[in-house]
Amino acid sequence: MSDIRFDFGNLHAAYAASLPASAMVETVFERIAAAADPGIFIHLADKAELLAQAEALGPFDPAAKPLWGIPFAVKDNIDVAGMPTTAACAEYAYTPQKDATVVARLKAAGALVIGKTNLDQFATGLVGVRSPYPIPKNAIDPKLVPGGSSSGSAVATARGIVSFALGTDTAGSGRIPAGLNSIIGLKPTVGALSAAGVVPACRTLDCISVFALTVDDAYAVFKVAAAKDEADAYSRTIAAPPPAARPPVLTVGVPAESDLEFFGDDAMQAGFAAALSMLKELGCKLVEIPFGDFYATANLLYEGAWVAERYAAIRGFMDTDEAAMHPVTRQIIAGARRLSASDAFNGLYALQALKAKLAPVIASVDLFCVPTAPTHYSVDAVLADPIVTNSRLGTYTNFVNLLDMCGIAVPTGTRGDSLPMSVTLLSAAGKDALTAALARDLHVASGLTLGATGWQQPNAQPKAGPTEDGTIELVVVGAHLSGMPLNGQLKLAGASFSRATMTSPIYRLYELADQIPPKPGLLRVGSGGAAIEVEVWRLSADAFGRFVAATPPPLGIGTIELADGTTAKGFLAETAGLSAAKDISAYGGWRRFVGAASSKPAFLTSEILATE
Amino acid sequence: MSDIRFDFGNLHAAYAASLPASAMVETVFERIAAAADPGIFIHLADKAELLAQAEALGPFDPAAKPLWGIPFAVKDNIDVAGMPTTAACAEYAYTPQKDATVVARLKAAGALVIGKTNLDQFATGLVGVRSPYPIPKNAIDPKLVPGGSSSGSAVATARGIVSFALGTDTAGSGRIPAGLNSIIGLKPTVGALSAAGVVPACRTLDCISVFALTVDDAYAVFKVAAAKDEADAYSRTIAAPPPAARPPVLTVGVPAESDLEFFGDDAMQAGFAAALSMLKELGCKLVEIPFGDFYATANLLYEGAWVAERYAAIRGFMDTDEAAMHPVTRQIIAGARRLSASDAFNGLYALQALKAKLAPVIASVDLFCVPTAPTHYSVDAVLADPIVTNSRLGTYTNFVNLLDMCGIAVPTGTRGDSLPMSVTLLSAAGKDALTAALARDLHVASGLTLGATGWQQPNAQPKAGPTEDGTIELVVVGAHLSGMPLNGQLKLAGASFSRATMTSPIYRLYELADQIPPKPGLLRVGSGGAAIEVEVWRLSADAFGRFVAATPPPLGIGTIELADGTTAKGFLAETAGLSAAKDISAYGGWRRFVGAASSKPAFLTSEILATE
Repeated sequence: MSDIRFDFGNLHAAYAASLPASAMVETVFERIAAAADPGIFIHLADKAELLAQAEALGPFDPAAKPLWGIPFAVKDNIDVAGMPTTAACAEYAYTPQKDATVVARLKAAGALVIGKTNLDQFATGLVGVRSPYPIPKNAIDPKLVPGGSSSGSAVATARGIVSFALGTDTAGSGRIPAGLNSIIGLKPTVGALSAAGVVPACRTLDCISVFALTVDDAYAVFKVAAAKDEADAYSRTIAAPPPAARPPVLTVGVPAESDLEFFGDDAMQAGFAAALSMLKELGCKLVEIPFGDFYATANLLYEGAWVAERYAAIRGFMDTDEAAMHPVTRQIIAGARRLSASDAFNGLYALQALKAKLAPVIASVDLFCVPTAPTHYSVDAVLADPIVTNSRLGTYTNFVNLLDMCGIAVPTGTRGDSLPMSVTLLSAAGKDALTAALARDLHVASGLTLGATGWQQPNAQPKAGPTEDGTIELVVVGAHLSGMPLNGQLKLAGASFSRATMTSPIYRLYELADQIPPKPGLLRVGSGGAAIEVEVWRLSADAFGRFVAATPPPLGIGTIELADGTTAKGFLAETAGLSAAKDISAYGGWRRFVGAASSKPAFLTSEILATE
Repeated sequence: MSDIRFDFGNLHAAYAASLPASAMVETVFERIAAAADPGIFIHLADKAELLAQAEALGPFDPAAKPLWGIPFAVKDNIDVAGMPTTAACAEYAYTPQKDATVVARLKAAGALVIGKTNLDQFATGLVGVRSPYPIPKNAIDPKLVPGGSSSGSAVATARGIVSFALGTDTAGSGRIPAGLNSIIGLKPTVGALSAAGVVPACRTLDCISVFALTVDDAYAVFKVAAAKDEADAYSRTIAAPPPAARPPVLTVGVPAESDLEFFGDDAMQAGFAAALSMLKELGCKLVEIPFGDFYATANLLYEGAWVAERYAAIRGFMDTDEAAMHPVTRQIIAGARRLSASDAFNGLYALQALKAKLAPVIASVDLFCVPTAPTHYSVDAVLADPIVTNSRLGTYTNFVNLLDMCGIAVPTGTRGDSLPMSVTLLSAAGKDALTAALARDLHVASGLTLGATGWQQPNAQPKAGPTEDGTIELVVVGAHLSGMPLNGQLKLAGASFSRATMTSPIYRLYELADQIPPKPGLLRVGSGGAAIEVEVWRLSADAFGRFVAATPPPLGIGTIELADGTTAKGFLAETAGLSAAKDISAYGGWRRFVGAASSKPAFLTSEILATE
């Protein structure tokens, strides 16, 4: 089986190194077969059609199509043109002619739909077992529930079958399965992603959410997908700026210790404490917040009138074909029939009272950190007590959309019992970018492999850092790399190493002619480029200025785009200086080229000795 | 009977001229008796208590208490501590220990509650006849309905019994009765005025509204009353800046001609056309807007689920004591019992769809102008067909709160049949100040007397004007007044006359010693001051600068507060220069002092001749 890693950076680097998109398609189907889990997909794309779509993408061009050749799965309550939408109820199914707005945007950006995934029927549940289709297996431990309602999307992502998947999240359906499968679950601000083309659960609260292996990937999908849409009256314009360094110090609200609830799961309690320590190490200031009003808000979702939204969404179907429904789903939604319009308004008043009370609390911190789920449940436990276990899983998720907050579930470690640990960062509506920035740092700090794939995290370092100290970042690509002949110049100038990373796949790397010590030149070419290994160092403005002034032609200092979409200043070569140069892009970096050039080890060694 | 005019400016001028507040109280009761209308008030304050409250105000001090000694009435669905709140249903009544937040703010500003006024029971209606108490008589024409639901408050204001009155406005209850009684009805942005202490009609839409004789008075009440209030979860911070000149050109949306509906009332149609002509003369640019979606929104209010809010508000009472209700009110609210929670949410979705569709339309203009009511109805006509007539009256009001707009009903003329003509200016949430600024100009332009009082409008000129041309306003008080010896200096400097007005009642006026020509000096004293006649002229900044530079001591140029609460630069005297001066404040202005000083006509005449 192919070992192509499906995180965006690795997959794009592979495409840049001339992997055909068809190979990705083959890999997807190999992995589906290897997973041997009939519960993940309700409908799969036709392989021949997918290969044709891959072919139709044309040459690799991530500048024009940021999701070029990225495979994704779609929860089966979101329309994909030509594929049935079942909402996990075959009797309800219809085949839309039109993509949901978000699916259309992702396709336009070059992403390919692999199939439609299983879910708790009508997106009602957090467990992933309320489906007439086979129960998807938790990707980490098959005894555990996969979480829901976006069960299949989470498992497909955690197994590396797809690079990302769409879920929906009303009560926590985009966060709980992410937490239980050790992947990222980005739950945008309500309305940031159009809900047009989604089978509603609670229309006033529904969000399309994103599962991915890394925060960068999830945020990249968010960025493509977010747009106000006339087709969804609840959609609104929410900022989706390029990823950026977060402020070095953030105030993070956490539930007051006496308000934390793990239902006796000591490992989760310990895991949460460890995650908070990680946040502190990342420079966060933790503030304990009484959580009673958050829990009171959460209780409104199922105890209050919002279940009537679920009934309103499928009333025509349910009133005529109720027997076709999953018994638990049916029981829950049927409860709405007892609720009057004045009950509904009383629910809205109760929510408004809590919103008004909590608004200053939410504004008092930059973000919140809560456990994603309070505990893990086995499939058997949930089947034995479907309502109570489900309700408990929503302890830290149910209040979020009611309070108009956004959030990201992020894996932070492995518990003592080998089960995954995840926390969710939450913040006020519109702070999706800040939430992603801290989630990224937390995920990187965890050092975890990705989902159930065993893949290492891409070479990502926290974006936060001392840029507030006035230093300037310099991207080095050749003789200034660690261990290379001119690296000592950086150290003499007081530079400090920040991180090793890759450029965007839009560059060519050349071995410059007649240089002592040997040096490469980096050239931006856009389409047809490759991702090149680089290092980022930090210098004082003064030292940076002198560096620039001393840079000899054909090298100069320009702006270099990195794999994570950020930019920094760094060495570029003038095209005019490359006439006699040799294109070494296929090596993916100067270090590997030098390593491969075994014919001249002595020369290199002597240079190193001479300059360090 | 006392002839004290109760608009704030006149009443405060009278207080400044040493009228005791007790005289105001006596006048209120005289006017109540003269009105001989038992339908206006459901509960009256005890006269002895009111006199004690007036006494307790202490010396006249409008700087500390901007509503010092201003009498007002309160709709009987708003709590006043110690007075029963009936909502026009005696069986429902309770006696609150605490004022509604807005009442408390107004009392703190020096206003005095005269009594609680009649209303359409539970604020359900626009007609003013749905009350078990006597029907209040329309102040302009007793055959007509007074309008509702804030019937008593509107009539009490229109008759000059009080200076202003509080109403509530969910569907139009603060605008329709204003229109039908030829007074101002200011309907703030939802949440600008706390609804704490109000018997709810539709909690998501309810507003406390203000009836007054002039826009300045209504806005002054709004300014005092507007504040975010923790006791009302729907309250929010809405700007209430000091009154200011509006932009000289405003784009005003009006219903497309084919969408206008007057139910055959040609006089109203002609009156509306005349009002639009007035707006054009005031510099407004009119834009026709299709009104179908506004009407569709309006229909949601009674045909959709919102009637369930009315039921939710009184469910405990109604379910046990329904027979005590007015039959029409009972019939309407009982309809909510048939509505389910999913109906309620479907209503919210329908509203959200219309809001999304209309948001760009509302943003495309500065304001809207609509007829306040499409027609007048007689009491007999409404009693004969209570539902249809009521519904028609709401044609131009029902959509406003659903779309989160603010508005002011303003009289614009008298129709050919002598009935009042009123339009309502509407704009997006938060634009209360702009709406008031244009409403003020429109009311002034109408030249109408106030309500049913026969009182002339106070000396108010449109605040709009060429301040955008870069000129500076100069307040002159003595020798520079029109026709006075130094007025020619202004004309030579290119100054143009803006308006004649009064200062706030916080000044003393002195005849300066040894001045040729004779000149007065104005001194700000605050409490114990008088309102002084002044003129406002406009000069270029250059000319103004030279004017200031040339002003001889003890005169200087400072900031002068005018009767309407605005300020401008103008002549003030240094206290040090007044030792030999004579206090002539009792004359109310230099012109009257000079006119009264008949002992020296020759001197004055010769000076005028010498300097002009």
